[in-house]
Amino acid sequence: MKINTNYLDLTENYLFSDIAKKVSAYSQAHPEASIIRLGIGDVTKPLCTPVIDALNKAVKEMSDADSFRGYAPDKGYDFLRSAIVKGDFESRGCDIDPDEIFVSDGAKSDCGNIQEIFDKDNVIAVCDPVYPVYADTNIMAGRKITYLPCTAENGFVPDIPKEKVDIIYLCYPNNPTGGVITKAKLQEYVDYANKTGAVIIYDAAYEAYIKDDSIPHSIYECEGAGTAAIELHSFSKNAGFTGLRLGYAVVPKDLIREGTSLNKLWARRHATKYNGAPYIVQRAGEAVYSAAGKEAVSKQVGDYMDNAAFIRRELKSMGYEVYGGENAPYIWLKTPDNMTSWEFFDYLLDEANVVGTPGSGFGKCGEGFFRLTAFGSEEATREAIQRIKNI
Amino acid sequence: MKINTNYLDLTENYLFSDIAKKVSAYSQAHPEASIIRLGIGDVTKPLCTPVIDALNKAVKEMSDADSFRGYAPDKGYDFLRSAIVKGDFESRGCDIDPDEIFVSDGAKSDCGNIQEIFDKDNVIAVCDPVYPVYADTNIMAGRKITYLPCTAENGFVPDIPKEKVDIIYLCYPNNPTGGVITKAKLQEYVDYANKTGAVIIYDAAYEAYIKDDSIPHSIYECEGAGTAAIELHSFSKNAGFTGLRLGYAVVPKDLIREGTSLNKLWARRHATKYNGAPYIVQRAGEAVYSAAGKEAVSKQVGDYMDNAAFIRRELKSMGYEVYGGENAPYIWLKTPDNMTSWEFFDYLLDEANVVGTPGSGFGKCGEGFFRLTAFGSEEATREAIQRIKNI
Repeated sequence: MKINTNYLDLTENYLFSDIAKKVSAYSQAHPEASIIRLGIGDVTKPLCTPVIDALNKAVKEMSDADSFRGYAPDKGYDFLRSAIVKGDFESRGCDIDPDEIFVSDGAKSDCGNIQEIFDKDNVIAVCDPVYPVYADTNIMAGRKITYLPCTAENGFVPDIPKEKVDIIYLCYPNNPTGGVITKAKLQEYVDYANKTGAVIIYDAAYEAYIKDDSIPHSIYECEGAGTAAIELHSFSKNAGFTGLRLGYAVVPKDLIREGTSLNKLWARRHATKYNGAPYIVQRAGEAVYSAAGKEAVSKQVGDYMDNAAFIRRELKSMGYEVYGGENAPYIWLKTPDNMTSWEFFDYLLDEANVVGTPGSGFGKCGEGFFRLTAFGSEEATREAIQRIKNI
Repeated sequence: MKINTNYLDLTENYLFSDIAKKVSAYSQAHPEASIIRLGIGDVTKPLCTPVIDALNKAVKEMSDADSFRGYAPDKGYDFLRSAIVKGDFESRGCDIDPDEIFVSDGAKSDCGNIQEIFDKDNVIAVCDPVYPVYADTNIMAGRKITYLPCTAENGFVPDIPKEKVDIIYLCYPNNPTGGVITKAKLQEYVDYANKTGAVIIYDAAYEAYIKDDSIPHSIYECEGAGTAAIELHSFSKNAGFTGLRLGYAVVPKDLIREGTSLNKLWARRHATKYNGAPYIVQRAGEAVYSAAGKEAVSKQVGDYMDNAAFIRRELKSMGYEVYGGENAPYIWLKTPDNMTSWEFFDYLLDEANVVGTPGSGFGKCGEGFFRLTAFGSEEATREAIQRIKNI
């Protein structure tokens, strides 16, 4: 019996598990410390009323034999897939069919699983710094990773790769840098993929945070993206579903490689290894697209963005070099005095009892940077910034 | 860009997707037909009151910032893992630690994902007939499959493999045959794994249906299983969570191969590719282990087993050769008149408007057999049998 030795090429722990352990150890050593977490990007606002109402109604249905629902359809319920198409694509002039939508238990799972339909020998391109899941899950499968440097100089948008790559992961608005991509630049990537036969995995988890109308919410706003890209969406950051778990992947029918439909391959994967998101959670997702849901969710996003603007402004006024936070819930700051990212992590934890995420945890180019999230409560965010001021 | 061509070695569709399509086509051609589904093994009873109460309470918590829960802990909430250990293992004298429990969105996902921590070059042994997920997910990863014939002659329990195999999937009470394994025979498998270094993946999804006290509910009732086996559990069939999605894997800390802890590998996989089962669903799972929950769930299982006994008795009285249905919710019948499994499927659908599952869909040795489930309502089950009688 042989283990998958690719796992031994990974760091032993997932980044956020490491941070959780470090904070827990600090907490035990300093039981009096009141720690503020602006680290892992978890939301803090409760589910909005339209979502709660939908959950309550669906739970009631599950209590009665006549309205009880067992296994969900493979790809998700029609009511949700139709609401997604209408709310996220038709409204933006993107031609997406409900059969191209695959409902899942969250964008993290889709990010991790999507690589399974590709051969082991593809060259994977990911940004550096990057959300660890893209790279880690490809390392687990034994693939070679090419890192595309994202720096202040290129606005945290990588140049088109010079060497040949097969699969490119892009996430805009970006985690962790808070950077955004213009439609023109994204179109360059789409054109590159169509020209070379590469496939783009576009993680749109943070699209709800876009304020600037010129920035694309979906890669399908670009011409020809239907033959170039898979797009991943989350309900976690717009509607606060981190603890409810819901997301979806878009795999266009026109996305064909080596004569094979990637939509069909993903359908086979989805049907074989997954049994659908809970009915009650799918109803909660549907409620996000109702008029009341849209209004409530937009209010939550607005509140978080007020935090982002506040953090950005205050850090700048303290002399920090600050990026992001304008069309994304993440603030990416340059550590002062040439501290390493982990040194700054310890410094903030020790001196201010504030937890952030070390940039180096996201890749080499993240060294010397640090991520703060706007997902805290207004009170905690203000308190955290005050404490940093007081150091 | 290369696709994963292992997918091309699969049948195009997942078995149950094929059946759904066939039934849907029949329904459209015969809109007047009232079809009874005893096919896919989905439950029909609503969630029991203690589970509904737990869901309602948890939904309320999610509506308030003070009690809102975001991302769940990697392995699941302590409250659920403790309840599992106490309810499913301590009560049976099995020494399992909460850190060996990994909560998931269902046994199907775990069945499909567990192979990822093993090398591509392992030889996989699965029963024939078998739940398609074990084989399909290994074929997707490019592994070689050895089939272990399960026949009426060996009581649907395979002989210990003669050739060397590395990973053995066993499911008892069995899907699809309804067969069971004795503790002595299961001990032989555990001893084989400990002697050869193989690993057993033990799918215990149907353990709640065991009536005979001598039959093991968990492989950890066998001596030395902690160094030999991973066990998978579901909340779908005992508590009707098919539409709620909850399961768990047990990966013992003593399960070491090539000097590496499989518990650690699975922890890394779980943390990297999965973000936890919904809080509200984990609370629902906890309620299954409450006194009221146990009573309600036991009543549901009892009702389904009344269906199983009824189907078994009636089919026998009609002259059918029938297996299973005594400690399992599945009835496995020999098709009459040498019909193939799919011929019998069409025959039952056409003549009685009853849907079952063709045995050949589960493997070559399933040819000439047919699976009926006990998960219908009492009324539908009686009506289905009456219709079969009337053909």
